[in-house]
Amino acid sequence: MIKNYKCIVAYDGFEYLGWQRQNEGKTIQGVLEKTLTTLLKEKILIHGSGRTDKGVHAYAQVFSFKTTTSVPAENIKLVLNQRLPKSIHINYIEKVDDLFHARYLAKGKRYVYKIWKKESNPFISRYYYCFTKEIDIQRIIDAKEILMGKHDFISFMASKSNVNSTVREIYSIDINNFDDYFEIEFYGNGFLYNMVRIIVQHFINIGLGKLSKEEFNEILLNKKRQFSHKTAPANGLYLKEVIY
Amino acid sequence: MIKNYKCIVAYDGFEYLGWQRQNEGKTIQGVLEKTLTTLLKEKILIHGSGRTDKGVHAYAQVFSFKTTTSVPAENIKLVLNQRLPKSIHINYIEKVDDLFHARYLAKGKRYVYKIWKKESNPFISRYYYCFTKEIDIQRIIDAKEILMGKHDFISFMASKSNVNSTVREIYSIDINNFDDYFEIEFYGNGFLYNMVRIIVQHFINIGLGKLSKEEFNEILLNKKRQFSHKTAPANGLYLKEVIY
Repeated sequence: MIKNYKCIVAYDGFEYLGWQRQNEGKTIQGVLEKTLTTLLKEKILIHGSGRTDKGVHAYAQVFSFKTTTSVPAENIKLVLNQRLPKSIHINYIEKVDDLFHARYLAKGKRYVYKIWKKESNPFISRYYYCFTKEIDIQRIIDAKEILMGKHDFISFMASKSNVNSTVREIYSIDINNFDDYFEIEFYGNGFLYNMVRIIVQHFINIGLGKLSKEEFNEILLNKKRQFSHKTAPANGLYLKEVIY
Repeated sequence: MIKNYKCIVAYDGFEYLGWQRQNEGKTIQGVLEKTLTTLLKEKILIHGSGRTDKGVHAYAQVFSFKTTTSVPAENIKLVLNQRLPKSIHINYIEKVDDLFHARYLAKGKRYVYKIWKKESNPFISRYYYCFTKEIDIQRIIDAKEILMGKHDFISFMASKSNVNSTVREIYSIDINNFDDYFEIEFYGNGFLYNMVRIIVQHFINIGLGKLSKEEFNEILLNKKRQFSHKTAPANGLYLKEVIY
């Protein structure tokens, strides 16, 4: 009998080419499929909630897969974690309804972006964007409201993407400021290619006083791909939650 | 004119074969010497305060090197950090007396060992020994006094080492218990090969109730290499400070 499983996986994406399986090079999906295929002794293909880019981390990416195995979910989790590299860890596996699909049924996602404010060190440089110039976080807080709700976010999409619609809805953007770092958490129904990282780079420019709230609003309303605006580095970004 | 420099370096040792330069494979000393040689345009050999093993980290390893360069220390630090991989970071460089030598003049060292008590995840597994079985930390605190002061620590030395004397002095052992992890900090005039990690493994056995304080004392007094006792994994260990 074919069973359908939902899994939640955390990964340190620093050394991976990203989520998606590729012919050459190490990817999260590739390592998971290979390990599952060996373990369950049948070809396993997994469906992630979406791709994450080269270097992007996940606290809780979701994927689903089908299998005929009779191995209980808890045992799959246990043995999988023994065999996976330390950089990938399965937090949770459960048997779900046949119709569950990690990508098609995802209703929302949370991403968090972390910026280290002090001198870099080897224990944080994989996990934060290190940025020591002074940032006025209040300016970012004042400007972030512009993005709330449903908008065409094409101005904040990487050029190489190809989607049917560039309209997305952002439910919330929360900024938490700590002694050593600050983080920006985005919650929305979905995000375009590189959208979070491009928005973060705009936020940094706002915090530096290089971009005003009004100019930022114009960029959104212009609905033009901004080739001139940089993308914040991948290593500060985490997929935090997928909502179904 | 030849100048002598003292440097403090932090590293994530997870992917390195250890401190010491080798013909094959990536080592901390190897990467530092190669980067310094390219930067200063003359062959640079560095002297560490001591070796750290494969996978061991450092918050503050010390090394010294001589050079004829006229580049100021602050600039060496800046450019070095730009060129080094993210896993190695120079915290500090200063010009010192010609007679300074990072190894010969080291008077003491602090090591800290970190044990994660909860389920592993990819963001801590490089940096902690993950050990979820319940450990009675009070038993370790009661037993640690046995090691204080000057002893022949040959019972806690790895078999392949070759030293003139196996007598060392431990000044303090501090245990800090947090919600997610606990750490054991050792301060002494020096440590034998694998000594901290072998002691930590004994402490764990004491905390599990597998080894009594009295048996532990006998092991020390027996002065025999304990081939049967395991060594705690490298990835929980950090060289924290070198005292001159």
